[in-house]
Amino acid sequence: MVEQLFHPKPGSKVRLSNFDPSDRGDYDRSKADDEEDALEQKLASLQERLYAEGKQALLVVLQAMDAGGKDGTIKHVFDRVNPQGVRVTSFKAPTPEELAHDFLWRVHKQVPAKGYIGIFNRSHYEDVLVVRVNDLVPRDVWEARYRHINQFEHLLADSGVRILKFFLHISKDEQKERFQERLEKPDKHWKFSTGDLPVREKWDDYMRAYEDVLSRCNTDYAPWYIVPANRKWYRNLIVTRTIVEALESMNPQYPPAEPDLDKVVIPD
Amino acid sequence: MVEQLFHPKPGSKVRLSNFDPSDRGDYDRSKADDEEDALEQKLASLQERLYAEGKQALLVVLQAMDAGGKDGTIKHVFDRVNPQGVRVTSFKAPTPEELAHDFLWRVHKQVPAKGYIGIFNRSHYEDVLVVRVNDLVPRDVWEARYRHINQFEHLLADSGVRILKFFLHISKDEQKERFQERLEKPDKHWKFSTGDLPVREKWDDYMRAYEDVLSRCNTDYAPWYIVPANRKWYRNLIVTRTIVEALESMNPQYPPAEPDLDKVVIPD
Repeated sequence: MVEQLFHPKPGSKVRLSNFDPSDRGDYDRSKADDEEDALEQKLASLQERLYAEGKQALLVVLQAMDAGGKDGTIKHVFDRVNPQGVRVTSFKAPTPEELAHDFLWRVHKQVPAKGYIGIFNRSHYEDVLVVRVNDLVPRDVWEARYRHINQFEHLLADSGVRILKFFLHISKDEQKERFQERLEKPDKHWKFSTGDLPVREKWDDYMRAYEDVLSRCNTDYAPWYIVPANRKWYRNLIVTRTIVEALESMNPQYPPAEPDLDKVVIPD
Repeated sequence: MVEQLFHPKPGSKVRLSNFDPSDRGDYDRSKADDEEDALEQKLASLQERLYAEGKQALLVVLQAMDAGGKDGTIKHVFDRVNPQGVRVTSFKAPTPEELAHDFLWRVHKQVPAKGYIGIFNRSHYEDVLVVRVNDLVPRDVWEARYRHINQFEHLLADSGVRILKFFLHISKDEQKERFQERLEKPDKHWKFSTGDLPVREKWDDYMRAYEDVLSRCNTDYAPWYIVPANRKWYRNLIVTRTIVEALESMNPQYPPAEPDLDKVVIPD
């Protein structure tokens, strides 16, 4: 079970320095790739059953520092899943209309419907991360949001949405290497923005904000997983395995046939 | 080029009896699978460029009779594409809120944003197919819709959305075989609805309605392709190839680097 290793006990105070972003368990690349391959096949077939059943939904939340691997995780973990049953939402800076509502308004609209897997590339957690680090709202406003988030996620969980939240944990050195690669490879230039540098400068502030998220919003009904993400193949393995285990425990079933289906005759 | 073979000349009167749903050109299964494999790799890389560029969108419309292969086409053609850049919309019977608006209102909301591939599993064409065959609105209402559709699609095309419309053409016998398979295989039962049988009974009415769609809404800016779909592997090949050719002609480019990117130094 992934649970124990990467999922801190709900209610416990998380210190990120206790989690090694370079961890790879007892895996090497080739052992991980074999297991990943088998897991992705399972994922594809579990997703088909989830969609056919149409009674439960899965919400996957991805958070990370820039270059932490959110896009790559989506691409690799879900690349064999039927896109018809998956909906990815990338949350950007809020629009004026979104800002004119509470911070969960735009998020609620994107919650996956029954039968679907929803993936949030960034999420409502930005409202207690970037917003907090940059003092975009007063302290008492963002302080209340941890409670708002827990209550919102509880509503979803009570309504048939299984929630899995992943913090893709990279080191500051690893981010530098990945930025460097974006600078050097022409087909990666578009992923580099000089605007990412001031964010990097506030690395320690972000880590503190993440620790609060991982401590205060890590619940039984919406657990956080802290994924060692310096090695992309290990990151993919942990995320895929966690999702597969969750779907297995949701145990979606093909719906029963209509009554008397065996008596149906198709006319010419 | 796929164009000439499966795309009727815009403005011409289409007779479906001139199109053989069992056609497979000069392909056998193994030749088609090899080409499909290469095309799907191209598709994945073209989609990455489309997403990175963020200036153009692709809208793929899929229409077919029940069991015509809409779901299977999406699953197979797009199974290697990054789900982050793809959004599938399945249009069902309209809700009361949707019915309280014009028929394009719910469709317009789902048009893909720049950088995205949008896939419509059924579409606004149902409003001149099922609606017409079953007299759900008066004739003068559905008659006007061909014009509304063309003008709507022209707006999209003028706004950077490339439109490809596929009619997956199966024979009535093939539908019977596929229905039979759904009756026989437990993991396919959920795809069978006895409600599909009255639709099958009106097969000829639907073919006439499709012929009008394919004749009246087949334009330079939003072409229809009539895909021989009795053989799933040939159907997938034609759809994938048409999409790849369209994306190649759209020729998306990675955006230029920010100025002075070569002078950037990433601090520790």
